[in-house]
Amino acid sequence: MSVEPRLLANAIRALAMDAVQAANSGHPGMPMGMADVATILFTEYMKHDPADPRWPDRDRFVLSAGHGSMLIYALLHLTGYERPTIDDIRNFRQLGSPCAGHPENFMLEGIETTTGPLGQGFAMAVGMAIAERHLNAVFGSDLVDHHCWVIAGDGCLMEGINHEAVGLAGHLQLGRLNVLWDDNKITIDGATDLSTSEDILGRYQASGWHTISCDGHDFADIRRALDEATADPRPSLIACRTIIGYGAPNKQGSSATHGSALGPDEVAAARVHLGWDSAPFELPAPVLDSWRTAGRRSANEHQAWQQRLAAHPQRGEFVRRMEGRLPDGFAQDGYLDQLAASPQNVASRKASELALEALTAAIPEMIGGSADLTGSNNTKTKSLAPLTRDNYAGRYIYYGIREFGMAAAMNGMALHGGVIPFGGTFLVFSDYCRPAIRLSALQSARVVYVMTHDSIGLGEDGPTHQPVEHVMSLRLIPNLAVYRPADAVETAECWALALGRQDGPSLLALSRQNLPQLRTERTDNLSARGAYRLRSATASRRVVLLATGSEVELALAAAEQLEQGGIGADVVSMPCWSLFDAQDQAYRESLLPGGALCVSIEAGTTLGWERYTGLGGLRIGLDRFGASAPAEDLFKRFGFTAEAVVPQIKSALNSMGDQ
Amino acid sequence: MSVEPRLLANAIRALAMDAVQAANSGHPGMPMGMADVATILFTEYMKHDPADPRWPDRDRFVLSAGHGSMLIYALLHLTGYERPTIDDIRNFRQLGSPCAGHPENFMLEGIETTTGPLGQGFAMAVGMAIAERHLNAVFGSDLVDHHCWVIAGDGCLMEGINHEAVGLAGHLQLGRLNVLWDDNKITIDGATDLSTSEDILGRYQASGWHTISCDGHDFADIRRALDEATADPRPSLIACRTIIGYGAPNKQGSSATHGSALGPDEVAAARVHLGWDSAPFELPAPVLDSWRTAGRRSANEHQAWQQRLAAHPQRGEFVRRMEGRLPDGFAQDGYLDQLAASPQNVASRKASELALEALTAAIPEMIGGSADLTGSNNTKTKSLAPLTRDNYAGRYIYYGIREFGMAAAMNGMALHGGVIPFGGTFLVFSDYCRPAIRLSALQSARVVYVMTHDSIGLGEDGPTHQPVEHVMSLRLIPNLAVYRPADAVETAECWALALGRQDGPSLLALSRQNLPQLRTERTDNLSARGAYRLRSATASRRVVLLATGSEVELALAAAEQLEQGGIGADVVSMPCWSLFDAQDQAYRESLLPGGALCVSIEAGTTLGWERYTGLGGLRIGLDRFGASAPAEDLFKRFGFTAEAVVPQIKSALNSMGDQ
Repeated sequence: MSVEPRLLANAIRALAMDAVQAANSGHPGMPMGMADVATILFTEYMKHDPADPRWPDRDRFVLSAGHGSMLIYALLHLTGYERPTIDDIRNFRQLGSPCAGHPENFMLEGIETTTGPLGQGFAMAVGMAIAERHLNAVFGSDLVDHHCWVIAGDGCLMEGINHEAVGLAGHLQLGRLNVLWDDNKITIDGATDLSTSEDILGRYQASGWHTISCDGHDFADIRRALDEATADPRPSLIACRTIIGYGAPNKQGSSATHGSALGPDEVAAARVHLGWDSAPFELPAPVLDSWRTAGRRSANEHQAWQQRLAAHPQRGEFVRRMEGRLPDGFAQDGYLDQLAASPQNVASRKASELALEALTAAIPEMIGGSADLTGSNNTKTKSLAPLTRDNYAGRYIYYGIREFGMAAAMNGMALHGGVIPFGGTFLVFSDYCRPAIRLSALQSARVVYVMTHDSIGLGEDGPTHQPVEHVMSLRLIPNLAVYRPADAVETAECWALALGRQDGPSLLALSRQNLPQLRTERTDNLSARGAYRLRSATASRRVVLLATGSEVELALAAAEQLEQGGIGADVVSMPCWSLFDAQDQAYRESLLPGGALCVSIEAGTTLGWERYTGLGGLRIGLDRFGASAPAEDLFKRFGFTAEAVVPQIKSALNSMGDQ
Repeated sequence: MSVEPRLLANAIRALAMDAVQAANSGHPGMPMGMADVATILFTEYMKHDPADPRWPDRDRFVLSAGHGSMLIYALLHLTGYERPTIDDIRNFRQLGSPCAGHPENFMLEGIETTTGPLGQGFAMAVGMAIAERHLNAVFGSDLVDHHCWVIAGDGCLMEGINHEAVGLAGHLQLGRLNVLWDDNKITIDGATDLSTSEDILGRYQASGWHTISCDGHDFADIRRALDEATADPRPSLIACRTIIGYGAPNKQGSSATHGSALGPDEVAAARVHLGWDSAPFELPAPVLDSWRTAGRRSANEHQAWQQRLAAHPQRGEFVRRMEGRLPDGFAQDGYLDQLAASPQNVASRKASELALEALTAAIPEMIGGSADLTGSNNTKTKSLAPLTRDNYAGRYIYYGIREFGMAAAMNGMALHGGVIPFGGTFLVFSDYCRPAIRLSALQSARVVYVMTHDSIGLGEDGPTHQPVEHVMSLRLIPNLAVYRPADAVETAECWALALGRQDGPSLLALSRQNLPQLRTERTDNLSARGAYRLRSATASRRVVLLATGSEVELALAAAEQLEQGGIGADVVSMPCWSLFDAQDQAYRESLLPGGALCVSIEAGTTLGWERYTGLGGLRIGLDRFGASAPAEDLFKRFGFTAEAVVPQIKSALNSMGDQ
């Protein structure tokens, strides 16, 4: 290479400080500090092809310290990706620019993950490394043989999720994972020693990681560290000792460079200090040429890979999986026929297992797991052998007591492609995963959350373990499909919808307790419209009961009692609100006709149900924490019985009559 | 002591296995495995007085592995606490029994914290240890000089929050914190090596902890370990090598003992194996006597402490703080006078800082902090010096990038008593804290969450950092008071309400961007009713605009434009929904009169606002993720301008007219 690496790195520094200055917003410190390390990584180590950002066997690069987004924008531009253009960079952090404040995988090819919420990029990279080893075991090294690189800051390492990610990666010995830690001794509040006294390398070693230190501004030392990391069979943490804001002569090394523009004077001083005399957003031709040449480094390797793929006996299957297409005619029909013939009065978590038996047998890319609740979440089927460091071909992951780490790893697996992850915990612990569930939704990742014990029906474990507000709070997350199926048939339908949804996550809220199978006739997938009329009024319709999950049974019982009193009552099962809201007005109004009293029954918070009941309707739910007792006692105590519900409905009908 | 410790421990084992068997639900494995360790701790080390469970200088005991709740119920009963009685234990996990599935601090004296959600008990204990050292620094060792003991399992140690708690405790060198790790090599899914390969002691050492190992069934070895732990100035982790379900001859050492009753046969076999021939729930008199004698161990120490307190110059202040009473006439009036005289058009996060300047100066028990966003959350005031290992008297904690750990520590501080913790992060990261916020609410802990950057008004950092669903999702948590103040006056009012609320947590959602001060007249605390009419229609009222926080300004602007068109419009500011919902019907209807079009404006999810607008109203909000751009561009892009809002309102009015 004719141009010195420092000069190449200074191109990153210049773009970063100039873009942040133009926006008067952003984080110059990290890109300037890590520019030297990133230059060596991208010009000498990373396997990628800017001409084909989706090459399946590319190395994955995750900027876990997402606030330093100008680093990745600079790298993509310099190595020759179609976007971002220099104008995109000029418009850093402006409406419509793909160069958003934090890297967003839906805005630019070459951004593997959306990062910013600290710790999650790293944890998603663990999932990517799992997917790589799994696909390598299934398809062989000719098709799958790549690394996952992470740049992480002190924040990523201090977050709790880091412990979970490090533990999982060490346990599974994910040697393809190499983390470059920007060891700059600075956080937003000041020096790291304000808040931490940790021997970070010691901690990583304790979890089975290989650790290395290097001078992040010494190119030979960086190469030595990267060589060691790639050679070691363990996951590697490379502590890159850097100076935050390197190149800004008066501010470098201080938190002043972290999260705001350097200011015109300091930018000018940095130009002098770095010997960079190009105007903002201008790149000297030799520098850009050198970068672009480096960007073509893997083109031959890519071509050779294409040839191997073309000749590979598993080509069709590999391409299908990487494109995220399910196998043709995947086998749920047989299972639904069975359910119609032999109804299953089982908990919906058990119904999920039954559905999964068929699905996991037919869809080899499904990889299951649980955060140490395998027997309770019913997530393990006969098709799923454990995925371990000795058998990456396995399809079941014992995630340990790491709910958040599991969720983030599943995001990484889904984003890597070629696998469809699903994983379980108790619904109440969706709170532990919630930041990752949000990122599933934002990133449109096909992850399926299997959340069992979905109400006070959990029983004796008590209020710490009983979700009350969770179903509703999950419905609030944009682009998350939340399902609460009422019986075995709906559970199978919801699973089909979840797997068929390529562009977003799904969450199944499932009961601990047994539920009767409410539907015994073979039909289309009725859950696909989000809600449907399960029972039509016999007498003249005065009431519409709306319910989900385990409370649909109760709604049916209440309807029966109402009909006995001559009060016609529909029952509408609503397994998925977002799907229902997407139906046309005529369909929605056909289920919720004017004039009838709309009554919601759900063993959770009532806030939100006004959307369907209106203010004139009735909402039966639970707006307080639960209690510890057997489930049947709790349902009784909190009024979830036909005997408690029906008088309220009659009273409401009488009030309507008064008006 | 005349009775052998093994026999004392077997009393715990018998109560645990019998209670779980009677309930046919629960977790016998942990209490039986840790019975020996707990016996030594409670009969020889713990400083507590069952006759006065609230003695301020008692040692705190936290059963972080809360599923083993029968351990603490047995210990409380055996050492002579008034409750649980043996009948309470007999009714373990039944409706109304204080012996709930997991320990609940609101059900029994002697239960310091509600545990069960794994990892949080440990992290709360860190907060207790901080409170202890702080109060020791303020009041001296005569009044405050106790330890915090934790029993934790593998789950507590594997959870991400453990990393945050361990890091914080090591950094602050909380030597009064001693953690007894139930090292039984078993999790729910099976052996720990299914999911982890960690050298746990190595990890703790890397964070500055003192570590010890002992045989958890060898009494001399347990004593040696506890002596070492209490002598060491660092926080201690004591790995107690135990056999889960110790005493159940056919099941011990396996996950079969973890989470279900042993079964009548195995209970009988355990009786034989342990040489325990009493009937279920019967305790041999010598055993119970011995336990009760041990329970009176600290009575003299307690009496001596009472005498020291009676003579102590800081007695009044100490008692006031421990009782949770604010100083008489705490100083907010002066600040409110100032605001009326010199209106502050500042971001509500800045208004919070201004309010805090007065409050922290007047209320010495307030301890602030931030998860590495001090300058952004505006949580540090002039009164607050850093709390460090060298100055525990400080009142500001640099929590580091540990949102969840901060929240749990604050719970522990509040539960310890004597301090009122508040801490900040970005509102979007309330998701990271959410499991602890839920426990604040369940435990009725006075914790104040300062959550800034509360909408797309955050701007350029983009959708990963912009809360959309968060305000609404927090409103769903029972017993959490969520405030979104509209200006500097409301911010001060909400702070007063938060501090005045002794029995539960409060969360303030605050803007990044500047907001005009909307109120300049001195009034009562109008936020106390949750919502109030800020502007009355001039023309005949046809519209009621409901808004919170930064959107109240927009509502006022829209109202002005409507009035210019002859449309009378009220504006109701709704800083706290739960307080409004608690008002009488007359008040609520006075703000939301029938006939008018109710329009909500809030830069977040609309789901939930139907509660106030009805289905005939209009909801202006954001039901998608945000984007990266300057705040003003985003508000425009997403329709949060009077120009965008007013035509929608007029159109809705026209539709009403049509009906």
